Amino acid sequence: MGDDFQPTADELLANNADYAESFDSRGLPAAPSRRAAIVACMDSRMPVSRILGLACGEAHIIRNAGGVVTDDVIRSLCLSQRALGTREIILIHHTDCGLQKVTEDGFKTALEDELGVRPHWAVEAFEDPYAGVRRSMQRLLRSPFILDKDHIRGFVYDVTTGLLDEVDV
Amino acid sequence: MGDDFQPTADELLANNADYAESFDSRGLPAAPSRRAAIVACMDSRMPVSRILGLACGEAHIIRNAGGVVTDDVIRSLCLSQRALGTREIILIHHTDCGLQKVTEDGFKTALEDELGVRPHWAVEAFEDPYAGVRRSMQRLLRSPFILDKDHIRGFVYDVTTGLLDEVDV
Repeated sequence: MGDDFQPTADELLANNADYAESFDSRGLPAAPSRRAAIVACMDSRMPVSRILGLACGEAHIIRNAGGVVTDDVIRSLCLSQRALGTREIILIHHTDCGLQKVTEDGFKTALEDELGVRPHWAVEAFEDPYAGVRRSMQRLLRSPFILDKDHIRGFVYDVTTGLLDEVDV
Repeated sequence: MGDDFQPTADELLANNADYAESFDSRGLPAAPSRRAAIVACMDSRMPVSRILGLACGEAHIIRNAGGVVTDDVIRSLCLSQRALGTREIILIHHTDCGLQKVTEDGFKTALEDELGVRPHWAVEAFEDPYAGVRRSMQRLLRSPFILDKDHIRGFVYDVTTGLLDEVDV
């Protein structure tokens, strides 16, 4: 196949050994000290902790393709609030997202054509990240499993400036 | 209610303004340069990028309660591989996980008793993080939507030492 891909796990493991040498987070409790949960896109250009100035132990960080509120995010937030005491939810989509470049039907049909199986899940494509944040926020507000809805805010991260822009609900 | 909870979003926004002042990641491509996707728990004690020595732009980071491979993780990885060219998957569960402290039935029944609605989703509780990683790995290996299964490795992160321990499949 002329495949020159080199997996990276061994190098990351060596990095981990260095990290453990200077490990200083022993004894932190499991419950996040800021009682916050962040929901953000998996995008490689979003170092979520640095973008928000979050230290180790301060917040749950949930990430998927798009930062979309799916059932799995509801599950994670329900456990976060109920089992680990978080009270605040911060949603972050971003500009130039991969999910703006596919369509629900197009992506599913391409998979079906290639693999013979059409996914049963929604791709969660969106055109505008601001509309995406609003859609995700509505899912939170209407879910019976989000126990605390008093502190929910949504943002779009600009990958060209590093800035968060708040989304009006 | 005597509720003294103080939301943290405004402070995080001020942190973000500082971050943007020294922003230096302009122009990174959306496709991760290491062509890797990490799947890890949302736990606040796991600074995933630092644990692995990952820089901005190098890998997708997907996180949920437990770091469990759910349908939403399959969706995210499918988009990661097909739309953004990743080839390697690294799974990370950890010691002292909140999902070891609940049971599937207990958590659902408590929600149903309190809210009157039983969740339709699995809680994804597990007893042993090593068994959890193996279970998640099997879901990847058997999914038709994971296009590249040649480079999948699983680890348990020890929250008391900062070290990753590889899981034999």
